[in-house]
Amino acid sequence: MRSLINISDFSVAEIDELIACAHEMIAHPEKYQDSAKNKILATLFYEPSTRTRLSFEAAMYGLGGHVISVPSASNSSATKGETIADTLAVMSNYADIVAMRHPHDGAALVATNAAHVPVINAGDGGHFHPTQTLADMLTIEREFGRLENLTIVAVGDLLYGRTVHSLLHAMMRYPGNRFIMVSPEELRLPRDFVAHVQLAGIDIIETTSLTSALPHADVIYMTRVQQERFDDPHEYERLKGAYELDAQTMTHASDTSIVMHPLPRVGEIAPDIDSDPRARYFEQTYNGKMMRMALIHRLLREAAEASQSQTRHEISESQETKFYRCSNPRCVTKYERGLALRIRGAEPQCTYCDYPVTVI
Amino acid sequence: MRSLINISDFSVAEIDELIACAHEMIAHPEKYQDSAKNKILATLFYEPSTRTRLSFEAAMYGLGGHVISVPSASNSSATKGETIADTLAVMSNYADIVAMRHPHDGAALVATNAAHVPVINAGDGGHFHPTQTLADMLTIEREFGRLENLTIVAVGDLLYGRTVHSLLHAMMRYPGNRFIMVSPEELRLPRDFVAHVQLAGIDIIETTSLTSALPHADVIYMTRVQQERFDDPHEYERLKGAYELDAQTMTHASDTSIVMHPLPRVGEIAPDIDSDPRARYFEQTYNGKMMRMALIHRLLREAAEASQSQTRHEISESQETKFYRCSNPRCVTKYERGLALRIRGAEPQCTYCDYPVTVI
Amino acid sequence: MRSLINISDFSVAEIDELIACAHEMIAHPEKYQDSAKNKILATLFYEPSTRTRLSFEAAMYGLGGHVISVPSASNSSATKGETIADTLAVMSNYADIVAMRHPHDGAALVATNAAHVPVINAGDGGHFHPTQTLADMLTIEREFGRLENLTIVAVGDLLYGRTVHSLLHAMMRYPGNRFIMVSPEELRLPRDFVAHVQLAGIDIIETTSLTSALPHADVIYMTRVQQERFDDPHEYERLKGAYELDAQTMTHASDTSIVMHPLPRVGEIAPDIDSDPRARYFEQTYNGKMMRMALIHRLLREAAEASQSQTRHEISESQETKFYRCSNPRCVTKYERGLALRIRGAEPQCTYCDYPVTVI
Repeated sequence: MRSLINISDFSVAEIDELIACAHEMIAHPEKYQDSAKNKILATLFYEPSTRTRLSFEAAMYGLGGHVISVPSASNSSATKGETIADTLAVMSNYADIVAMRHPHDGAALVATNAAHVPVINAGDGGHFHPTQTLADMLTIEREFGRLENLTIVAVGDLLYGRTVHSLLHAMMRYPGNRFIMVSPEELRLPRDFVAHVQLAGIDIIETTSLTSALPHADVIYMTRVQQERFDDPHEYERLKGAYELDAQTMTHASDTSIVMHPLPRVGEIAPDIDSDPRARYFEQTYNGKMMRMALIHRLLREAAEASQSQTRHEISESQETKFYRCSNPRCVTKYERGLALRIRGAEPQCTYCDYPVTVI
Repeated sequence: MRSLINISDFSVAEIDELIACAHEMIAHPEKYQDSAKNKILATLFYEPSTRTRLSFEAAMYGLGGHVISVPSASNSSATKGETIADTLAVMSNYADIVAMRHPHDGAALVATNAAHVPVINAGDGGHFHPTQTLADMLTIEREFGRLENLTIVAVGDLLYGRTVHSLLHAMMRYPGNRFIMVSPEELRLPRDFVAHVQLAGIDIIETTSLTSALPHADVIYMTRVQQERFDDPHEYERLKGAYELDAQTMTHASDTSIVMHPLPRVGEIAPDIDSDPRARYFEQTYNGKMMRMALIHRLLREAAEASQSQTRHEISESQETKFYRCSNPRCVTKYERGLALRIRGAEPQCTYCDYPVTVI
Repeated sequence: MRSLINISDFSVAEIDELIACAHEMIAHPEKYQDSAKNKILATLFYEPSTRTRLSFEAAMYGLGGHVISVPSASNSSATKGETIADTLAVMSNYADIVAMRHPHDGAALVATNAAHVPVINAGDGGHFHPTQTLADMLTIEREFGRLENLTIVAVGDLLYGRTVHSLLHAMMRYPGNRFIMVSPEELRLPRDFVAHVQLAGIDIIETTSLTSALPHADVIYMTRVQQERFDDPHEYERLKGAYELDAQTMTHASDTSIVMHPLPRVGEIAPDIDSDPRARYFEQTYNGKMMRMALIHRLLREAAEASQSQTRHEISESQETKFYRCSNPRCVTKYERGLALRIRGAEPQCTYCDYPVTVI
């Protein structure tokens, strides 16, 4: 059975198929309105995210299915000390497919491994959030008719911004794309990420100047500086206003560029841009719903066809260890009772959250 | 496109049509059970109200539609600092119609202006709550076969009681109605409200005596003294027990009168009235569901027919200003980022919450 | 109209019919997928329980119905001081059937008496939780093909463990069953419960030794020591680890035995048992959903056929009193405004929560 933890779980060809399916659903929604009839989606949001949850639920209803929901952790058995693995084993008896958001990095892999229905990662801590990336890709593709030979300018919090990391990973797989990274010094892309991109021979530039980057942009990808990532409120206040896009700034960008944002925004994009014909951040949420429809549709179909083999690729290629610990304090291995660390690779990484591990 | 912020958004003729539609739905529910098939209602309750939320949801299911829900603010992007306008712009991509409750006066106008689907105001602070009024009107009409030439006795908190204000506004539009207002001195109707009614040449009497009012009543409209409106708990305790309807008191009322209450009650109506044939407060909740069905049905139909013009009457007739501020501390203009005050009228009022404005 | 407060509300013959219906639904789900079309289930969880709530909701969707939900008390009118009776009178206008969980013992009887639709008790304090028992019975019956002549070993918290009490009550009604009760001294079955079983001539043994009990077991019923029942955290810590089932311990049990647990577990069953062919605790949750489907299906059908007579057996056989008070501090009579105590029996018991009453 197929789940979706990370955007790289799908090949480029499979993503192209999802995009084609979304186009078909946009053009002929009536063809799909009963395709998940009598099926149940469980939205398990142990970390609340109204927007993402409702997008999944609207997608399921667009396919004619049902929804059961845990909108936040406070209402759940998690507060009685239940493991993610047990929760997913139980939910597999209630639902045909699960969309889960969880505060701990790597929780999605634990979930997919315990479930016997498909699991979609709707965000596991600061780790992955692949359906946002699918929404972003459909938005770009609908605009330019292609996902290659584009210049993407990403702005804001590039250090913690999971959304940007994931988009870059995805767009690196298409030829001819170029990346310009605009951020304050403190919020630059992680060094190893930049090294990884450069090693792949891909053109990536880092700058603190938004106005110098804008003229080159096909896609202007704005991000929010997330308060929850900062311990020091003053640091947060100082950095959050670093880049604001307004009508004046947008004069630097070309007429054929588009402005994107994963939302919610808290000031990165001035309201006067809303009526700019280049604004696409609200369309992005529509595209997110359509890609989630395409994804649920595909995973349910694959599940119906598949054998019940549950062991994922990552698990089978990695090994359990008692000699290492994961270096990530928010890794699911620190919280999930009875879960042993698994590692993989020559420079060993945690199989769950992809952080480096250290010898105990 | 048509939304519903205030009961006065509908003409008397349109309200009569809604009531006729509700009658038809009561008589032949099966005719309507697929009329909102494949449509999605979003219930956005940034201030929780279980009863109202479930009434809307049951109404949508009665029409065969789907529901996505934000049952309380704590689970929402609102806690990440998102504006009402952005939230509604996004929700318009997930849902075909929205019912929103919000703690701030005037939030409903902000929402309707940002949404590109119909929005039903399910309560914006102490401002408006039109679907409660529609429920009340259907209850009266089903009993008396008319909405005119009736004597309405309203009892309890008439100062803060949004429900009574709205019912009076609505019933004033029908000829021959008479109003008797029963309250302690401290909770009398606002002075300007009384002046407004009298100016319209309508018969309105204020009294502190419940027993002297009851013999005249067709409708006895009881209300709860709301704890959340009082800063001083002693004041609340003193006033809440001011008027309690019990079997003994009800001997003063005629056999053809009816007892209504928007619920929940906390002691205003003794349980022994529940079996009195004049009690209608539970039927009111049924009628509320039926009027919401009629309303959703109508707004979805109008939206399908309408052009996408979004600018509301109130907005177009008012003007933005930087020289005034709204005098209402709970006005949405104090909270919504980037929202300028708009005013209208010769003695300028806030377009959002209808409070007087003051020069800065 | 028929509701379900306690497992004993159904005769043995009726339980057998429910089990037969669940078998039919497991074999031919498509036959039932529209059987509750256009019907609405309200899940009112004034005490949160995600697992039970979602099980009811998945069951209703399996029958093609709709769901409206109060997932926790914090979002509800209960916080405005509304009585259970008023809430249920209102909900009867929104839903065709109600599943309610409430923190107070006896709340289910108050609810069924006020509602004019069927009410299913989804747990009223430490009092009853009959649908868990139905899930347990289907699990046993599917395994052994019978509900008689079985040896049931119950382990853990037998003092407060509502689940075990209810299962024993239910299984005592079938001939030839034998009970072995394994617990620390402090968490033994209530003395009067044991006396009651023995008086019925049924074989019941109490022991502190798990390993000596296991060889005799057909059913090994594990339970969680519930933190919320303890005032002293040290006492909780000391007792919670008293019995843990692991692969080593399971060597004492026969190959044909099965391991059950109402879940969530917090350490009573080691993860290595999950792959033991005798583990049934995840199947139990599936069986719970199927029995809830059978139950909703039956109660809706009976409601359609029944007259609207609301007075329950318990109420009519008992009498109101002002001379006694219930000895249970968590009894609903201590909290529900306007509710008089009712008593029944020669040694008078509270009609609501079944605790002894004391003279005032």
